[in-house]
Amino acid sequence: MRVVALAGGVGGARLAHGLQQVLAPGELAVVVNTADDVELHGLLVCPDHDTVLYTLAGLADRERGWGLAGETWSALDQLGRLGEETWFALGDRDLALHVVRTARVRAGARLTQVVLELGARLGVPTRILPATDDRIRTRVRTPDGWLDFQDYFVRLRSQPAVLEVAFDGAAEARPTPEVLDALAGTKRIVICPSNPVVSIGPILAIPGMRAAIEAARERGVPVVAVSPIVAGRALRGPADRMLVSLGGEASVVEIARRYAGLADLLLIDEADADLADAVAAAGVRPVVAPAVMTDDAGRAALARAALTAA
Amino acid sequence: MRVVALAGGVGGARLAHGLQQVLAPGELAVVVNTADDVELHGLLVCPDHDTVLYTLAGLADRERGWGLAGETWSALDQLGRLGEETWFALGDRDLALHVVRTARVRAGARLTQVVLELGARLGVPTRILPATDDRIRTRVRTPDGWLDFQDYFVRLRSQPAVLEVAFDGAAEARPTPEVLDALAGTKRIVICPSNPVVSIGPILAIPGMRAAIEAARERGVPVVAVSPIVAGRALRGPADRMLVSLGGEASVVEIARRYAGLADLLLIDEADADLADAVAAAGVRPVVAPAVMTDDAGRAALARAALTAA
Repeated sequence: MRVVALAGGVGGARLAHGLQQVLAPGELAVVVNTADDVELHGLLVCPDHDTVLYTLAGLADRERGWGLAGETWSALDQLGRLGEETWFALGDRDLALHVVRTARVRAGARLTQVVLELGARLGVPTRILPATDDRIRTRVRTPDGWLDFQDYFVRLRSQPAVLEVAFDGAAEARPTPEVLDALAGTKRIVICPSNPVVSIGPILAIPGMRAAIEAARERGVPVVAVSPIVAGRALRGPADRMLVSLGGEASVVEIARRYAGLADLLLIDEADADLADAVAAAGVRPVVAPAVMTDDAGRAALARAALTAA
Repeated sequence: MRVVALAGGVGGARLAHGLQQVLAPGELAVVVNTADDVELHGLLVCPDHDTVLYTLAGLADRERGWGLAGETWSALDQLGRLGEETWFALGDRDLALHVVRTARVRAGARLTQVVLELGARLGVPTRILPATDDRIRTRVRTPDGWLDFQDYFVRLRSQPAVLEVAFDGAAEARPTPEVLDALAGTKRIVICPSNPVVSIGPILAIPGMRAAIEAARERGVPVVAVSPIVAGRALRGPADRMLVSLGGEASVVEIARRYAGLADLLLIDEADADLADAVAAAGVRPVVAPAVMTDDAGRAALARAALTAA
């Protein structure tokens, strides 16, 4: 069974890892958000892609949630000594990836080609596909004005209230041929439990992306979303506060509203079973199942539940 | 007393460190060879500059002779995993420097401006000046054809015989304003015990460089060279074999021939005292003094001997 997952960072990476566990090699493509990408020290850093890459390669640091297990930090120390800002912590092995990716993209390769090769080098059996090879960058408006996404997310630790979100460049971006191919050939589409606003949002904001998903649905391909909100809280990151500060609520019902017309099903945790009717009323069919992934088995179980529901 | 030293890598760095020890802060400028510079993984790597920088900052690895003391190697390991060539060993902290320098040069700064700022960040009281901001690259002809310098020097460990040397770009290069200023204001010029062919050679090949040195000599500024050959052997690197394969001999007399008309004095080791007359006959006045630097005191002593002779 061929499956396409849409994913942002940690939560998306974990469900993608579950899907990779339960599917045969080559059956999964993960379309990752690129609007978090950032230029640091002259290097192209792709946080969501890399979290998915490291997680699917079995190299991720499970405690920290981002970066590589067993990472060292010498270069970051030296960057600081040389007058660079160091609030975005790049490990030594991670830095090597950014160096290689930047060099190859600068040499003229498409981002997608580069990261597919890097994924193969790290032994990942899944195709991790940037949603676009074009440049999209998320900015958020806070009470103190507009901020670049990583400035808000990492430097300010997601503390400011987000009042508005913009995806610079999205209107001129296009899905890659690889993404369109994957969607055209898939049997299932899974929207991972990532932030619907700033992780899944920028993917869907690319002209042609919704149409490609819609075309799959017309062929009978079910779209199942997995809620990143459980019992009113984001399992990770600022999605709960962001949904509220943008005028919505931190609940599975809000997730249903955002995915209505796009997803057929919304998988919600047992803790939210009492909101199943409200989810249905918002326009998405609810599926209740354990939605908190605590280990590899939990990731696989959630993946199985999402695929079974669909 | 203001002093300008011309230097390549390790030997030059060590005498530069001696000069820095015996001069007051700000009195020394070191003009470094840039023809060894190389693009690796999309980054601008400047081996001679960095050896001088790390040595003058007190950060160099004394055993290895290049790179930083206490260096770590995680990024290099990852570069290899990602399919990059790893015969040029970049440490993690070293990589950080290359990343920063590359970013700033790409952003439009002159190499000289960038490295002066990095030197200041590392607390170096000496101005380390690239001989030029233009691109020069050494190539060497071996029995198997032409090779880029680092391909010959690092990958092939200087094993092939060098039959011819070319400095690509030298004819179109210019000394920097900083180098010309330093030479115009100096009281002494020291040619460090670096490879005369591929370290000092490319510096002198820049149009205008010899004329600037000549102008200083006409003002009465003495030029003292320190022989990189002691008792027929290069203290480090392939200078001895290279001098022979290029048709000369591995001796202080050969060094005198190469610097005749440029240097007033050649400091040779006591082991070569019997060649003093031959050095004089080759056109450079010999000065005999211990020329092997084994520790900081030896570096300072050689620096003092060179300055006193001049």
